[in-house]
Amino acid sequence: MAIGKAPQAFPRSEYLRRLALVKSEMARRNVDALVINSWANITYLTGNFTRMLAMHALVVSTREEEPTLIVRRMCAPGAFHQSFLSHDKVIGYSESYVGKHDRDGFDAVIDFIHDLGVASRGIGLELGNLTAQAAEKFKARLPNADIVDCTKAVDWIRGVKSDLEVEVMRQAAALADAAVMRAAEVIRPGVREADAAVEIMTAQVRGAAGVPPATGLRPLLMKSSPRVCTPHILWSEDVFRDGSQIDMEVSGNRHQYMAALMRSFTIGAPSDRLLRLHEAHAAGIEAALNVIRPGRTCSDVAEVVYRAIEKHGFKKESRCGYAIGIESQTSAWIEPTASFGIGDITELKPNMTFHLMMGNWVEEEFGYEISETICVTDSGVEVLTRAPRQLFQL
Amino acid sequence: MAIGKAPQAFPRSEYLRRLALVKSEMARRNVDALVINSWANITYLTGNFTRMLAMHALVVSTREEEPTLIVRRMCAPGAFHQSFLSHDKVIGYSESYVGKHDRDGFDAVIDFIHDLGVASRGIGLELGNLTAQAAEKFKARLPNADIVDCTKAVDWIRGVKSDLEVEVMRQAAALADAAVMRAAEVIRPGVREADAAVEIMTAQVRGAAGVPPATGLRPLLMKSSPRVCTPHILWSEDVFRDGSQIDMEVSGNRHQYMAALMRSFTIGAPSDRLLRLHEAHAAGIEAALNVIRPGRTCSDVAEVVYRAIEKHGFKKESRCGYAIGIESQTSAWIEPTASFGIGDITELKPNMTFHLMMGNWVEEEFGYEISETICVTDSGVEVLTRAPRQLFQL
Repeated sequence: MAIGKAPQAFPRSEYLRRLALVKSEMARRNVDALVINSWANITYLTGNFTRMLAMHALVVSTREEEPTLIVRRMCAPGAFHQSFLSHDKVIGYSESYVGKHDRDGFDAVIDFIHDLGVASRGIGLELGNLTAQAAEKFKARLPNADIVDCTKAVDWIRGVKSDLEVEVMRQAAALADAAVMRAAEVIRPGVREADAAVEIMTAQVRGAAGVPPATGLRPLLMKSSPRVCTPHILWSEDVFRDGSQIDMEVSGNRHQYMAALMRSFTIGAPSDRLLRLHEAHAAGIEAALNVIRPGRTCSDVAEVVYRAIEKHGFKKESRCGYAIGIESQTSAWIEPTASFGIGDITELKPNMTFHLMMGNWVEEEFGYEISETICVTDSGVEVLTRAPRQLFQL
Repeated sequence: MAIGKAPQAFPRSEYLRRLALVKSEMARRNVDALVINSWANITYLTGNFTRMLAMHALVVSTREEEPTLIVRRMCAPGAFHQSFLSHDKVIGYSESYVGKHDRDGFDAVIDFIHDLGVASRGIGLELGNLTAQAAEKFKARLPNADIVDCTKAVDWIRGVKSDLEVEVMRQAAALADAAVMRAAEVIRPGVREADAAVEIMTAQVRGAAGVPPATGLRPLLMKSSPRVCTPHILWSEDVFRDGSQIDMEVSGNRHQYMAALMRSFTIGAPSDRLLRLHEAHAAGIEAALNVIRPGRTCSDVAEVVYRAIEKHGFKKESRCGYAIGIESQTSAWIEPTASFGIGDITELKPNMTFHLMMGNWVEEEFGYEISETICVTDSGVEVLTRAPRQLFQL
């Protein structure tokens, strides 16, 4: 018996709209077939979010309405089930391509390009996602093709969301909010960090009344004193203590769309210096929200944020936000395109979504995190995350 | 104030032992400095498991006892905190290397290699983990070096665990067991998959009495009918139903060491065909356990498994296991080295650990999963996971 379709996150017309944008970019670059390896880009163009651990590619051809997804055979039923693709557009390559020295799944992809009759035309590759060996194989087995580097081409297109996507991100944001509110309930002196982490992750998945559950989970980044200057680690084996500061990075996940949210907590009263650090970065967020609107650039946003923080006597070195949307292969939030950094002249457009991010790791044991996920609107900005924008005192 | 050290998973002597093995392999390959990018290999050699989303590298030099870890500055305190490395062996590169067109973190790594005085010697790279652009940069900026491809060199070394590592994997296995037993309690008709998933993940992190909590979490792969032939997806938004089959892939995580475990469940009595599929694959596991011992090859194991399954009237195409240990960057269980597959002549040695894996996706809606994480001993095999090896009927 053949597997059917899962409830689809988006209608077919939404995927065709996205594909039309990609095909138009392909035409501009003289590319007849575009080979996409990024998990996030494949999710964007098909709805599939099986964990494709073996070699895989989506091939978008200007000659066909639907693209073709080429995956390890065992992944094909799941990819068909989740995606909008027709049955014949999901090709499972056999186990004889797995774990071999002389061939791999990319050979199946190249065979498909030959079958498509475009092997002597413009072939787009995401070279930034391919190892040197894989790139070499494409060049060697497509000697007459005009290889065009299309790294980030699809990432830039998905930077501007549709209204449907923004609605999904609102749901993701509600899950992130639920996690923060749960954290405020369960973080107490003597509680093991791991025990609090599972309560918070439970809220992050299960959500609140009226909010559908998460369809994925990025394990919780939660850093308690003395680890408040370690942005990218999970919970520890320690317990919370009186006087501790806890920094937390959560995200809701709906259909692989992430809304990110950072909040910090203290057990007991915060130090004056920490309060000032909070005020500086809350001012940074306010300043950004006042300036974000279509026509402004990412650099404009960064400038007002840095100025607001400096006015409060602190300095932030790293960028203060980045484009956000579909989860990356390494569970990162970031879309590898626009950043709120000085010199990034990306112009803001309606329905661009960003993680407006004030993480600032000032000294080895003094740092702070507060952020919102936001959406550029026609006339300004909508803050998707809604947890109280405060330093939580527990 | 400087951040201190987290409780260490292993003593310094254990890391020096591992480094001695790597340096000996470097000498064999005429490599003076080995540049390592794989998260898992870096965890293995340092204890660091911060999520290094920006460019990073560990440089092992034959001239220095400790290696040097080069990461984005904001990641340096966490990396120092978690690893055994001295303070001066964790170098944080500045934000001026991030999000730029003309340089990135690898420039900081290459600068370090020049400073080390080995830029004209043998330099080992994990080319299989580098994009074409990154590999090109190393070659261009180290024109007098003898570049040696050392892809998987460290992965092969970490294939044989120390007794300390095996003990950590026993703890991870106990967490996986706890998750399976919790699943048997919470999977019931009408329950939302997402709600069951968080209960199971809670057990996976929190563990059981006497077992320390998980230090990481791979989100739960749980597939209910009709998705029993989709190996690599998470829970869905559906509820469990009478007559459903549920296949589950869990893993415990201690200090990033994973023990993996697959079990399947039915709500109500299983079909005769499914029972026979279970018996075939349970026989496959038995056959493997009877043959695994030092001196046998991976291919020997595969042969007896395939034969046992075929004797029961089924056929399995994919490999029936692979080396397992530290979690990969994409949350995969697999170590990219030895597999229980025909033709893999890797010789089994004491303290090699494998996921002995009978996942078999026979038709689009008919499949089965049962597995154990095992350790080769001096005279045979120890099964680390201990959940009842059965098709659970709920």
